[in-house]
Amino acid sequence: MNSLYKELTPWLDRAYALNSALVLMEWDAETEAPVDAEEMNSKAIGILSTAYYNTIINDTVKDLLWKLSDADDLSPTEASVVKELKKQFDDMEPIPPEDYQAFRSLTARGPSIWAKAKNNNDFGKFAKTLEELISYQKKFIDYRLEASGKTIRPYDLLLNDFEEGFTMKELDQFFENLKKEIVPLLQMVVEKKDKINKDFNHKHYSTEKQKVFNRMLAEHVGFDFNRGVIKESAHPFTTNLHNRDVRITTHYYEDNLESAMFSTIHESGHALYEQHISDDITGTPVGTGVSMGMHEGQSRLFENNFGRSREFWVPLFDQLKETYPENLSDLTLDDFILGINKSTPSLIRTEADELTYCLHIMVRYEVEKMIFEGNASIDELPSIWNQKYEEYLGITPSTDTEGILQDIHWATGSFGYFPSYALGTAIAAQIQAHLKQVMPLEQYLEEGNFEPINAYLAEHIHQFGKTKTTNQLLKDMMGEEFNPQYYVDYLKEKYTSLYKNL
Amino acid sequence: MNSLYKELTPWLDRAYALNSALVLMEWDAETEAPVDAEEMNSKAIGILSTAYYNTIINDTVKDLLWKLSDADDLSPTEASVVKELKKQFDDMEPIPPEDYQAFRSLTARGPSIWAKAKNNNDFGKFAKTLEELISYQKKFIDYRLEASGKTIRPYDLLLNDFEEGFTMKELDQFFENLKKEIVPLLQMVVEKKDKINKDFNHKHYSTEKQKVFNRMLAEHVGFDFNRGVIKESAHPFTTNLHNRDVRITTHYYEDNLESAMFSTIHESGHALYEQHISDDITGTPVGTGVSMGMHEGQSRLFENNFGRSREFWVPLFDQLKETYPENLSDLTLDDFILGINKSTPSLIRTEADELTYCLHIMVRYEVEKMIFEGNASIDELPSIWNQKYEEYLGITPSTDTEGILQDIHWATGSFGYFPSYALGTAIAAQIQAHLKQVMPLEQYLEEGNFEPINAYLAEHIHQFGKTKTTNQLLKDMMGEEFNPQYYVDYLKEKYTSLYKNL
Repeated sequence: MNSLYKELTPWLDRAYALNSALVLMEWDAETEAPVDAEEMNSKAIGILSTAYYNTIINDTVKDLLWKLSDADDLSPTEASVVKELKKQFDDMEPIPPEDYQAFRSLTARGPSIWAKAKNNNDFGKFAKTLEELISYQKKFIDYRLEASGKTIRPYDLLLNDFEEGFTMKELDQFFENLKKEIVPLLQMVVEKKDKINKDFNHKHYSTEKQKVFNRMLAEHVGFDFNRGVIKESAHPFTTNLHNRDVRITTHYYEDNLESAMFSTIHESGHALYEQHISDDITGTPVGTGVSMGMHEGQSRLFENNFGRSREFWVPLFDQLKETYPENLSDLTLDDFILGINKSTPSLIRTEADELTYCLHIMVRYEVEKMIFEGNASIDELPSIWNQKYEEYLGITPSTDTEGILQDIHWATGSFGYFPSYALGTAIAAQIQAHLKQVMPLEQYLEEGNFEPINAYLAEHIHQFGKTKTTNQLLKDMMGEEFNPQYYVDYLKEKYTSLYKNL
Repeated sequence: MNSLYKELTPWLDRAYALNSALVLMEWDAETEAPVDAEEMNSKAIGILSTAYYNTIINDTVKDLLWKLSDADDLSPTEASVVKELKKQFDDMEPIPPEDYQAFRSLTARGPSIWAKAKNNNDFGKFAKTLEELISYQKKFIDYRLEASGKTIRPYDLLLNDFEEGFTMKELDQFFENLKKEIVPLLQMVVEKKDKINKDFNHKHYSTEKQKVFNRMLAEHVGFDFNRGVIKESAHPFTTNLHNRDVRITTHYYEDNLESAMFSTIHESGHALYEQHISDDITGTPVGTGVSMGMHEGQSRLFENNFGRSREFWVPLFDQLKETYPENLSDLTLDDFILGINKSTPSLIRTEADELTYCLHIMVRYEVEKMIFEGNASIDELPSIWNQKYEEYLGITPSTDTEGILQDIHWATGSFGYFPSYALGTAIAAQIQAHLKQVMPLEQYLEEGNFEPINAYLAEHIHQFGKTKTTNQLLKDMMGEEFNPQYYVDYLKEKYTSLYKNL
């Protein structure tokens, strides 16, 4: 091993340990910590975040990274680690430690402030926190732009954090095209929507039964419980300490069967990515999914492209009916498939169907653009939000809870994150198209045989973590970089075929 | 604030944050972490332990502590913090950081190695780990004795870590006296034991129902769920991040009703102590229970002195019967009370009745004495253990699982811990005797009114944390230091009265 890299190792170990602690404490805050513990636990998180910051941002590490950037005797993994750490260094160094600590302490408290506001249906209770979060992010953008000397738009900088190389230019184009292609499709689909009976979804489904069935679902798609945990939280999410400790949550509604099921499959898709990261890189700065877009590419591949297909339910449908005979005994597989693919413009992103989903993302994308590029005031945001829902989806939230307060992301300090959901949706369609070329995908799904599917994804995407970019991964796997046309084709084909006999 | 104390504050904050992370990671390892995560998570725990060590053991802190020890303008809390931290410094400084890290990493892995050995009923699978743990402890004792220049027996040093001022001299005497007093009582009780029918305890009790009832039990005695969590683990325990985050576990057996119930009450007793620590000191080095003995004093007070009394069950017995009508509809309160107080020499400490409990502790005390004072070899330990059970309790374990492998403590690196269980049992009797003097204790229990009881304990014991010693607390509360005679009197009176009509 390069002797300078050896000197870097204790810093990497320390960053790994502090990151593990932070991930666990945040997971705990979302899933288990007692309500009154928040202030003291947030204080601990703030202090440990500073310690993490100081582990990466210090003169010794800086010196090592600069020297190692020129070293020619690093292993490929070591070179990737140096490159990634240098990137993190460049992103973080311009931010003063006291600002960073205050921000992390705020993002630790944010989710519960948001949850209270959401429960009370009162945006005002969250507005001040949101304003502070935005103001920190704007400050951080200024610091970073100043340090880099680059002339990048503020919001482009945030977008780039989640998906390298995708700026407002690409996204404006992407959303324009989607709007053009989806709107006519949506019209056809909405006209026929009343022909689909989805009443089965809203009967009474006990949490206890759902827990058992959802655990089975996660296992069915390949989630490894020796390396993972499933639990409940207000908003489903996935987190990971390393490739042998990957945790997902879901949320059970007793009057909505599909909500938890597709959350579980979705988060399992994220989890599989992390569980398949190579042992060589796990626990290092490159030992996690390359980007939010590619991550959503996995989760939405499982949730929608697989999970809402007829094939997927062939081996599961009897078990589903046996779990809830009181509700589903008369339901046919075809009607179930139509039901879980019923498209209706609705207010809640996480409950949206595949067809309208990207319109939800468009709203958030445009609102975020206004925040970071147009100086929209916080107080205006709820009404801007509502107007855009009216414009794109033809419906208006009657409360903040089903409007601007529905998502946790801003409460955790994440801005520029949402567009990666749309990119991920497109990536999923692209990967699915490729899988159909290289394996009998439909047959495997019908057999409930996820092993070859997961093995292929692990080999060509998952194992690499951050050692390849999204475009490199796609190119190396299928000879083609990101191409959103697959997604448009997928939607057209799927909805035309599903609705043709209605 | 004293300016030197102000300089100490960031170190205290950091120690607090690292300790929170370590407590949480260890709690997680016992209750939730996926099985394959162990190695990587242990690595993180080891690294953070070193960071904790370095936060306390460094020249800056040393210098501050030495200067602050002479300062005369500290608040009482600050003075206590300095004193406690200096004590920790003196205990830890002699131990080389690399040994400490290796030890903590071993104690992080220990519980799962122990659990596997226990599940496989194979002491051999744990022997090597146990040997390493003992060898670290012996090394640490040598380091500490050398640094202090004192001539203390090795095992006395360990005993003192758990209960200041209690050495083999006091304990030998304590156990001798107990043996003298308990054995005749036990003879009377064992002769009559077949007259007590305890079959109700071993019918089928579903885990689901037990969960609900046990949660209610914890709430009944005053456990505050806004400041706490209850969960399951192989071996029940309590842990705490601070006074607003106190966590207990229990373990449900479907063929044993009382096991989880009395575990829950026991751990709730520990938890109440920690939940009542004053806000002034929580999160500081003195913000936790003063000693293991005093801690067991609380847990056993709730478990036995309260929990196994007739008064305690007056307000709960109907609810218990309604929860399990299929098993308990014919049971009378008197028969239930006799059942939960039936004394039978048995193999498992945690299932032992009040009368034989201290004999279980005696076995461990004597085995530990042999390990640290007599150089017993690891391989001999199971047979030594079994011989002592035969000698004191008249029964011999047929397997290591129900013998030497039953307790987790050694796997976590704790030696000298067990005697504090016996001391705690005696402290509980002493506190109970005092409570009867100052309040209508029996009436409160019969009313299920724990508020005045908890308020009194909080005011006179709990709030102080480590700012007073065990003997100071008892003296200030009742004018008398530790006196084991209360315990002997309690046992005599209780068992004579319970068994008099049989």
